[in-house]
Amino acid sequence: MDFSLYFPIWDKLTPEEQQYLSQNIIFRKATKGTVIHDGNISCTGLLLVGSGQLRSYMLSEDGRELTLYRLFEHDMCLFSAACMMTSLQFEVIIEAEKDTELWIILPSAYKKLMESSVTVANYTCELMATRFSEIIWLLEQILWKSFDKRLSAFLLEESRLENSSILKITHETIGNHLGNPREVVTRMLRYFQNEGSVKLSRGTIEILDPTKLQQLAE
Amino acid sequence: MDFSLYFPIWDKLTPEEQQYLSQNIIFRKATKGTVIHDGNISCTGLLLVGSGQLRSYMLSEDGRELTLYRLFEHDMCLFSAACMMTSLQFEVIIEAEKDTELWIILPSAYKKLMESSVTVANYTCELMATRFSEIIWLLEQILWKSFDKRLSAFLLEESRLENSSILKITHETIGNHLGNPREVVTRMLRYFQNEGSVKLSRGTIEILDPTKLQQLAE
Repeated sequence: MDFSLYFPIWDKLTPEEQQYLSQNIIFRKATKGTVIHDGNISCTGLLLVGSGQLRSYMLSEDGRELTLYRLFEHDMCLFSAACMMTSLQFEVIIEAEKDTELWIILPSAYKKLMESSVTVANYTCELMATRFSEIIWLLEQILWKSFDKRLSAFLLEESRLENSSILKITHETIGNHLGNPREVVTRMLRYFQNEGSVKLSRGTIEILDPTKLQQLAE
Repeated sequence: MDFSLYFPIWDKLTPEEQQYLSQNIIFRKATKGTVIHDGNISCTGLLLVGSGQLRSYMLSEDGRELTLYRLFEHDMCLFSAACMMTSLQFEVIIEAEKDTELWIILPSAYKKLMESSVTVANYTCELMATRFSEIIWLLEQILWKSFDKRLSAFLLEESRLENSSILKITHETIGNHLGNPREVVTRMLRYFQNEGSVKLSRGTIEILDPTKLQQLAE
């Protein structure tokens, strides 16, 4: 895999900057379920996804999770390099949600580039603005959208990502994505089943009526 | 009031940049309660607070509010200039919470500076990282901290900001800050009153036992 084809502003860098960056990246494969960055202990570096899928989430003191965003091919993650900026004072965990190939850009090298290149600095600002907009959207969802809407939107999104109407996912995992206890998820899924929107089996959820879920999600 | 004493990276700009910036600012006084930026309609510009206090908040479709952050002397606000960055796709409202003196930096001028000056671009990134950290903190509070903790922390913070143990604030206003309906606020305040932590009167809340509130907030 060729880093230069994946790094979004590669062509805008000078040859010297391109060379410097190339010398400060690590290519890595991570199998599904691997924790790539653990907010508590490390400043891993910036992540650039070549293939696969990463999930970024927060963890409460008592072990509850909330998915913040997903990263796909060509996506970059800043927040696994919080040491790079003094004002980034929060911790996220990043795990491979599918088998993933990625590059890790060393934080000190990226910081140096950012401080000398107006292109890299502006790109970084745009990247942060993108994530910021996603988090504000999430905050609005949590505060102002009822759980049935959020759950139906989540099921449809999962179905799209997996390209299947049968989802192999536990109620606990869904709860971790949405920041709700498992019981709340189970209760709502049973309600959906009664309505004919889904069919629940051991370890799977089959979407029977996507239109109905879509209407609910809107 | 002298802009150069308030703009945090003034001394790091070149004389030409300083001059350009000076030509693209507007000084404004806003009385308490004035809406300075309404996310729905405008790209006001970056705000720099000279004196007073601003509040940034979100508004739901059905009129519910949530305070995102406050801005004090020397603080800058980016999100009233969302047009400046393509990835900033969310809307906030900014109002003067006290009589406020501020500068508005024209968004096109700031954008131009940011695209040519690595100093301005890096400063903007740090500024965004600061707000991002605050929003993540808020998200954690809302998801994982019970309402009694959030309310006691809010009362103590207000008391500190107003430098008074008697707060002139309605239950509805508190609800707007914390993203909860008025009834929920009233119920919890009555509980606090029964516990001897506060005393409620018409339009005011007196803090009787800050230590007790502090213990609850932690």
